[in-house]
Amino acid sequence: MPKKGASSTSRLYRHRGDYSWRGIRKEKYKPKGEDWADIVRQVLTGSHGESTRFHFRYFEISPDGYSSLETHRHEHVVICVRGKGRVRAGKRRHTMCFLDTLYIAPDTPHQLSNPFEEPFGFFCIVNAKRDRPKLLR
Amino acid sequence: MPKKGASSTSRLYRHRGDYSWRGIRKEKYKPKGEDWADIVRQVLTGSHGESTRFHFRYFEISPDGYSSLETHRHEHVVICVRGKGRVRAGKRRHTMCFLDTLYIAPDTPHQLSNPFEEPFGFFCIVNAKRDRPKLLR
Repeated sequence: MPKKGASSTSRLYRHRGDYSWRGIRKEKYKPKGEDWADIVRQVLTGSHGESTRFHFRYFEISPDGYSSLETHRHEHVVICVRGKGRVRAGKRRHTMCFLDTLYIAPDTPHQLSNPFEEPFGFFCIVNAKRDRPKLLR
Repeated sequence: MPKKGASSTSRLYRHRGDYSWRGIRKEKYKPKGEDWADIVRQVLTGSHGESTRFHFRYFEISPDGYSSLETHRHEHVVICVRGKGRVRAGKRRHTMCFLDTLYIAPDTPHQLSNPFEEPFGFFCIVNAKRDRPKLLR
């Protein structure tokens, strides 16, 4: 159920045609750290006063970029929408293409990367309340 | 946090290239009712033992189809990924195109429809625990 003080206004975030959205700002993937490279994040749902139990974000990994190798209790749902990318989830490795959808189970070490020549863009849905990732190396 | 008995296996659902996914079945939008027409649903996350606090679904409305005009306390996040469609949310009406993202606030009457010639496909994310829609007419 929605929290008090939740956003009470519906809102359309228009895609600009270049994987950015009107009214959504581009942020760094994480404020600091050297365990990742070349990732930009846009939070489409979860930072505008919504009371959803989930956050909906778009990430883009530039060619040669990669996310942290990490594990946590919370689950991820990852949907490729731009280019293609590589993902490691547990012992498995996959290449993700347009609309391929990956469920990453609890406590599964995972990492996304882009060894290709075009940007790798994907949506990632997570629970709003979630534990902190543990970095692996 | 994940529930007991939750799925413990990560899984990749491959997009077949036609807005269907390997391992995901096509269902009717609702089991019955005459307040909607020509919609197919695919549940990508939420019916395979996941413990996510959200469900992630793909809906497709055929030309001339429409969803129920309804309202409920839970929120929707709708992302257009195929064709284009019309949406009514409160007093506003919009046309949605590729990757346009709509947040529908609590208690906002809404309806999606497809007056165009191509299928209108969209992702819709909702809280896993949610109230029943009230139909309006």
